[in-house]
Amino acid sequence: MPAPLITLLTDFGLSDYYVAAMKGVILGICPEARLVDISHDIASFAIGQAGFILAQAWKCFPEGTIHLIVVDPGVGSERRPMIARAGGHWFVAPDNGVLTMVLESLESSTVYEITGEKYFRQPVSRTFHGRDIFAPVAAHLAAGIGVGELSTEMSDFVHISTFLSASTNTGGWIGNVLRIDKFGNTVLSFPTAIFGPMLSQGFELSLGMHSVTRRSQSYADGLPGELFVMEGSAGFLEVSVNKGDASQLLNVDVGDLVTFVVCQ
Amino acid sequence: MPAPLITLLTDFGLSDYYVAAMKGVILGICPEARLVDISHDIASFAIGQAGFILAQAWKCFPEGTIHLIVVDPGVGSERRPMIARAGGHWFVAPDNGVLTMVLESLESSTVYEITGEKYFRQPVSRTFHGRDIFAPVAAHLAAGIGVGELSTEMSDFVHISTFLSASTNTGGWIGNVLRIDKFGNTVLSFPTAIFGPMLSQGFELSLGMHSVTRRSQSYADGLPGELFVMEGSAGFLEVSVNKGDASQLLNVDVGDLVTFVVCQ
Amino acid sequence: MPAPLITLLTDFGLSDYYVAAMKGVILGICPEARLVDISHDIASFAIGQAGFILAQAWKCFPEGTIHLIVVDPGVGSERRPMIARAGGHWFVAPDNGVLTMVLESLESSTVYEITGEKYFRQPVSRTFHGRDIFAPVAAHLAAGIGVGELSTEMSDFVHISTFLSASTNTGGWIGNVLRIDKFGNTVLSFPTAIFGPMLSQGFELSLGMHSVTRRSQSYADGLPGELFVMEGSAGFLEVSVNKGDASQLLNVDVGDLVTFVVCQ
Repeated sequence: MPAPLITLLTDFGLSDYYVAAMKGVILGICPEARLVDISHDIASFAIGQAGFILAQAWKCFPEGTIHLIVVDPGVGSERRPMIARAGGHWFVAPDNGVLTMVLESLESSTVYEITGEKYFRQPVSRTFHGRDIFAPVAAHLAAGIGVGELSTEMSDFVHISTFLSASTNTGGWIGNVLRIDKFGNTVLSFPTAIFGPMLSQGFELSLGMHSVTRRSQSYADGLPGELFVMEGSAGFLEVSVNKGDASQLLNVDVGDLVTFVVCQ
Repeated sequence: MPAPLITLLTDFGLSDYYVAAMKGVILGICPEARLVDISHDIASFAIGQAGFILAQAWKCFPEGTIHLIVVDPGVGSERRPMIARAGGHWFVAPDNGVLTMVLESLESSTVYEITGEKYFRQPVSRTFHGRDIFAPVAAHLAAGIGVGELSTEMSDFVHISTFLSASTNTGGWIGNVLRIDKFGNTVLSFPTAIFGPMLSQGFELSLGMHSVTRRSQSYADGLPGELFVMEGSAGFLEVSVNKGDASQLLNVDVGDLVTFVVCQ
Repeated sequence: MPAPLITLLTDFGLSDYYVAAMKGVILGICPEARLVDISHDIASFAIGQAGFILAQAWKCFPEGTIHLIVVDPGVGSERRPMIARAGGHWFVAPDNGVLTMVLESLESSTVYEITGEKYFRQPVSRTFHGRDIFAPVAAHLAAGIGVGELSTEMSDFVHISTFLSASTNTGGWIGNVLRIDKFGNTVLSFPTAIFGPMLSQGFELSLGMHSVTRRSQSYADGLPGELFVMEGSAGFLEVSVNKGDASQLLNVDVGDLVTFVVCQ
């Protein structure tokens, strides 16, 4: 059996010692754990952004992976620490909605409130539960401690609603910019499963001052400087430009509204 | 016995090949080593900053960990390469004061000058001792070569003094901003062991144009926009604001002076 | 035998889930693989920059290492995915010239077009071959699948020519700025093997508005604020300044022209 695999996703950045502190704690408890960073570059307190990144990344890891997520603006408050079991993976995170996008995409999940205080790092600070609660719990889970030892099943967890898209009075749809990646690819809140098939008809997508009416199958298909829509690898429509930065051409930010109309 | 664990802390950044070169050298010598990055985002040549990050991080790792630190403005000069054994851990670093904060926090330590040239990567460049001296020495230590083979005990090492705090004529204390973390939490050079108990009385902390008189137990306890002091997880007083960036509100930088007065 | 070692070099950055997706795919196929990041901070689509970083880094890793490089502006087009076997290492990359600098530095290499579609992650997207083709192929190679199963030998691969240096009519040489590292060290396209010996004579190096005539053996040898030339650890002449940022003093960028004249 391969060694346990733990991924880490935080808003801690890489300049401080916070991520290393968590890794040190994990390896002290479960020396054989393999650690993989998802990202530590989430904007401070950006639960929704972390949820989106997690929802894309977790599926690529093998069954049994433990995903440790610490984006935790409510640290030290009454928000509960939680474990979720879903899709054959484990998720250890604050119960603040960061798991909503993953758990809603799966048919079933079991959620637990972390209550096994004897597995915490003592003394538990009121400001760094990543080091004192989440890392040790993930490590003990990896080391074989049962979820029933670490936590107590609960009936619900915090959901945050992400606005994706809605139909408009005039027969179109309204959505928003979900993410801008490092290349400037502008991911829209229009799932390809629904909106992809509509691209084969004439359509008009409006963002900022721009209108996009061309579709492409890949980045390399686009003409130089030309904005086009494609079915992105994250499962959403995406506006891109061949070897350029679409978000700069569009002058848009995450959250900006987008409309989609099919030409009849 | 678990595989050897080596942490890495440098000012090399992640855009160049320097960190990877060190890791490649280590894994060529000790293939079973587990590598964990502490940070590579230390400002260029910032020995004090690296010392602070190290002093926080090392304690979270299990006994026997080898910490490899390369912040080395004097590379190619007469500064000695060193090994320290302290607190059950190993430290491999240039002898330039980067270990002062860790070693002074521990009751005892043994320090060695690295002299085992036959364990260096040949030819030794005059500009990249991280790759040619420090990485191979840490790797050989991990692989079981004795410290006496790699180095020679020495009687002292370079200390740099970090100004923490001093009492003033008027019955208060003066300190400075030790670090600003990614969230804007402003860590002060007032150790919680000494100053924490004073927070239960009335107090006034002055930084920049601001005065902070409120204390909080956790980030989440603060009112929106309100600056407060807390006992930070690094063992120092810290000025924070709930879900905001305290350093921006305060308009302070690392090194700025801070005064602390207890109201009688 | 040590576990297989895979390095990763991309222009994906660390804010998105792209690197983690590749690592998840690899560990699903070859759980025992050890993963080491070279860099993910290559400028978007910068094939030449990635080639330079790779050419420096690969040599530090042990024989048998698999280097996975995904800087892939042509993803989704007809550019071929390739494997190269050279210097006792493996390279898995798009056939777009990113391997030119490594392969031209070695006496011999064998190159293959990746054709083993049954080893790809299905369905293969048209935008993320890192996850769907390159990562699984590298992982299968690590897991022991033969190169003949994964690919078909080919006779040539895409070369990109990097302008290094040329002699001028007036008896000097012209070259350019190859790289500026995190410290501001300005790496020139003058190989030390050829130009190093000339430094012992009088010389004049001209970049931007500056002229550099002093040579130093190490960073620490330089006088404060004084620009000097040295034989850098990457095998090229390098302009540096002791504890300062030479590229800022010089006001130069990558690609800027440089002339070198020996004084007779």
